[in-house]
Amino acid sequence: MTRIAVTGAAGRMGKTLIEAVTLNPDTQLTVAIERPESTLIGADAGELAGIGKLNVPVVGDITQVLDQFDVLIDFTAPLATLANAEACAAAGKKMVVGTTGFTPEQKQQLLSTADTTGLCIASNFSTGVNLCFKLLEMAAKVLGDDVDIEVYEAHHRHKVDAPSGTALSMGEVVAKTLGRDLSEVAVYGREGQTGARERQTIGFATVRAGDIVGDHTVMFAADGERVEITHKASSRMSFARGAVRAAAWLQGQEKGLYDMQDVLGLK
Amino acid sequence: MTRIAVTGAAGRMGKTLIEAVTLNPDTQLTVAIERPESTLIGADAGELAGIGKLNVPVVGDITQVLDQFDVLIDFTAPLATLANAEACAAAGKKMVVGTTGFTPEQKQQLLSTADTTGLCIASNFSTGVNLCFKLLEMAAKVLGDDVDIEVYEAHHRHKVDAPSGTALSMGEVVAKTLGRDLSEVAVYGREGQTGARERQTIGFATVRAGDIVGDHTVMFAADGERVEITHKASSRMSFARGAVRAAAWLQGQEKGLYDMQDVLGLK
Amino acid sequence: MTRIAVTGAAGRMGKTLIEAVTLNPDTQLTVAIERPESTLIGADAGELAGIGKLNVPVVGDITQVLDQFDVLIDFTAPLATLANAEACAAAGKKMVVGTTGFTPEQKQQLLSTADTTGLCIASNFSTGVNLCFKLLEMAAKVLGDDVDIEVYEAHHRHKVDAPSGTALSMGEVVAKTLGRDLSEVAVYGREGQTGARERQTIGFATVRAGDIVGDHTVMFAADGERVEITHKASSRMSFARGAVRAAAWLQGQEKGLYDMQDVLGLK
Amino acid sequence: MTRIAVTGAAGRMGKTLIEAVTLNPDTQLTVAIERPESTLIGADAGELAGIGKLNVPVVGDITQVLDQFDVLIDFTAPLATLANAEACAAAGKKMVVGTTGFTPEQKQQLLSTADTTGLCIASNFSTGVNLCFKLLEMAAKVLGDDVDIEVYEAHHRHKVDAPSGTALSMGEVVAKTLGRDLSEVAVYGREGQTGARERQTIGFATVRAGDIVGDHTVMFAADGERVEITHKASSRMSFARGAVRAAAWLQGQEKGLYDMQDVLGLK
Repeated sequence: MTRIAVTGAAGRMGKTLIEAVTLNPDTQLTVAIERPESTLIGADAGELAGIGKLNVPVVGDITQVLDQFDVLIDFTAPLATLANAEACAAAGKKMVVGTTGFTPEQKQQLLSTADTTGLCIASNFSTGVNLCFKLLEMAAKVLGDDVDIEVYEAHHRHKVDAPSGTALSMGEVVAKTLGRDLSEVAVYGREGQTGARERQTIGFATVRAGDIVGDHTVMFAADGERVEITHKASSRMSFARGAVRAAAWLQGQEKGLYDMQDVLGLK
Repeated sequence: MTRIAVTGAAGRMGKTLIEAVTLNPDTQLTVAIERPESTLIGADAGELAGIGKLNVPVVGDITQVLDQFDVLIDFTAPLATLANAEACAAAGKKMVVGTTGFTPEQKQQLLSTADTTGLCIASNFSTGVNLCFKLLEMAAKVLGDDVDIEVYEAHHRHKVDAPSGTALSMGEVVAKTLGRDLSEVAVYGREGQTGARERQTIGFATVRAGDIVGDHTVMFAADGERVEITHKASSRMSFARGAVRAAAWLQGQEKGLYDMQDVLGLK
Repeated sequence: MTRIAVTGAAGRMGKTLIEAVTLNPDTQLTVAIERPESTLIGADAGELAGIGKLNVPVVGDITQVLDQFDVLIDFTAPLATLANAEACAAAGKKMVVGTTGFTPEQKQQLLSTADTTGLCIASNFSTGVNLCFKLLEMAAKVLGDDVDIEVYEAHHRHKVDAPSGTALSMGEVVAKTLGRDLSEVAVYGREGQTGARERQTIGFATVRAGDIVGDHTVMFAADGERVEITHKASSRMSFARGAVRAAAWLQGQEKGLYDMQDVLGLK
Repeated sequence: MTRIAVTGAAGRMGKTLIEAVTLNPDTQLTVAIERPESTLIGADAGELAGIGKLNVPVVGDITQVLDQFDVLIDFTAPLATLANAEACAAAGKKMVVGTTGFTPEQKQQLLSTADTTGLCIASNFSTGVNLCFKLLEMAAKVLGDDVDIEVYEAHHRHKVDAPSGTALSMGEVVAKTLGRDLSEVAVYGREGQTGARERQTIGFATVRAGDIVGDHTVMFAADGERVEITHKASSRMSFARGAVRAAAWLQGQEKGLYDMQDVLGLK
């Protein structure tokens, strides 16, 4: 049983992580951390997450609870994460980090933690997305140049970039498998007299609407049939479950740097 | 029972029309026409369409069978259609025309047929598409500006324009209902740093792949829920069935010009 | 600006309601209530909901804050709701109630509140679902007996009944419009040698998987084309938004009993 | 370039095979056969298929054209196929057979042809379906018992059995990979108080409507995310293309019995 600390406990991802820890039979929540000025310090982490009392009060200072957990899961902000990493490294505690937005220098500082403890970082902690990359590679290999390939993705109205990083990664997996250069064959929109489709292109169709967490479909279409590989994220829980799975796995590893492919054994 | 003539009988649409006529309880195939030089003259129209013998041999000259049908259904090419229209007008025979690609002068010549007989022309003979326009209007009225609206369409690799005319018409129905100008709010592709979505925009996501006959979905997305109205054409049969329905309806009408909205009573 | 009280503030639906109140420009959160023994009494309702400080501390007793709100939104449990209804009726405060599971006697007691104040009750507060019922009626009217009709629904693994109440209601709308008796024409599963489909039947296909909040699609399929009307709930927010819209609308009404159809003007 | 004969040339599958042969760069149509009493004997096979003149007249007797082709593709009926097999075996011509409905004795007689020539038989000639079986195996391996698995399939109104053979095969692939017995865990319909879903079950949701050629989706659903693998057949062309691919491949093989897995190299 791996003892887990969650930081950013009152945020949306923090609450989801708290729930995911309790759902995983191999992990136990023993520490929940928030900013010291939060009005929620002292509240029960389980009640805060809406899943019933866990008898884990939210605390404001990681340094006072370093002996109460094995792995810290941190999806917060760069400065907070770096401070936590320093504390964890000093105490030999392992870390799963889903924080984004580091500067190159900050990233370097974070990675150096792996010299003294186990550190797992991933751009996407979802098991399903990582599986899909493998399925796409196999489909592209078998279907080859006999099909038209299109990537559809839909995200919520607040997303500021397009296509999504995951959609682009999916396109890259397919392009690489087929020996194409995505930057040359990608089509990001179609308007007017486009002419007939060229087989080599890989089209991206992007929807931005409502609160869609993240839908991705890659379509391989021949005359007479289509194969589609789809991933639909419905909540942060997909990332939280992956991060908790990573934490349980990380507990059994040596110091060093790992990613989600290591965790899932897909390397 | 309306007696139907189908021209272009050996083409794909002609064969589908032959089948649709036999499926409609109110119509009967009595004439099938092809170009006089075709090797299929004399073949049975039903066998040609793959639906079993109908005892209607394919003929090469409309003028010799003008007394054997009530309504001609014509999905061929402008010059052939104009010649047929002249023959039909002279004999008082009605026409359902799905031919496209007329020049303005040719179109004018065709329309003048309506002075002497019943003529039904439509840009899209599908019952489902016409219904969807009505559903979209109602959805836009009720959901108003509380939702993000996106139009998705997918067509076969041979389609040379984008988005499809039907997708644009769907966008126009929605825009008009909400008092927006589609030319100002339409977004035809998203790439790079787009920023958060603006509520007033109407996005179009376009897929070109394989042999997709024609899929259209309009999505109305709020926080917490989506309503989607979808039309999927699976074959020419959708247009053929509508055209045959139009022919049966046209038989009971006076001379004049009609469209699919008249036929379906949606005006 | 309607002043809103939310009860069950620390539950999942309570937190969603708090967020929905802040998102609606016509409403303001002024009161948040929880059980008096909760460890969250005194915490800020906004921080609790993960949306930032609102300066509304959670309180444990409705009777002390009756002068601080106009409409109470209550999605809790029967006994709690009845106690709140008594307090609101006595103080002339209006109520929107989404609580379920009342005994007939409890339901009667709740409805009597409408004699002295405004009360809005609905089995489903979603705007989209209510719209879909109208769209289904129109589609069934136009397409009539020329199509096969199938209802697909998918819900999370914890749902204990099938098909969903909403799916059955959708089937009833369609059956009623077409003059069919749903209990006679419904097909809830297909296995083995079923024979060809009979036109009059209405099929239900049910999926139970993962955390799907609630997907519903009604398909109208002819030869050559399909029309589909789809509703996808992605979170409690769909119900919360509808309930808050109901609260804002209710503030302008006389005492009496109302439902979501009244709120949306669909009657 | 493999010279192909197509029998049943005037049927729907025959016409599709003719088109598929012309689309494959490695094959050429040299013979088209119909029943000797057909009115289409002598018609051009390309015009019959609606793809323009091919200068291949339809003939009524296979024995007179045995020297004009390398591989016969036969999707007709048992007795016709057996007669053709006898003629091909005697002449050392190879065969691709998609005919179904053989009695055990007839099947045995057909298989004996493989003693003297190359014979390729498959229950499903679609490349996509065969690929999907592989993708499903991989997905089940990675996701294991952490997901709920449901199979959705939709077919046209004329289909007389449910779920489809392909859907059952997909369920079997998944069940076998996970060490489950499909006959014990399959759920073919849900109605009434079903209770919460049990993880081990594999649900089948079946739609029968319109002219749907064949849609299959297998859903793997966890909390927070879903992976879906979908196959959509849009026309007989999927089977025709696979059969033609099989014919081209078969030309390079020794005598013996082969299936589609051999052709695609998926064994």
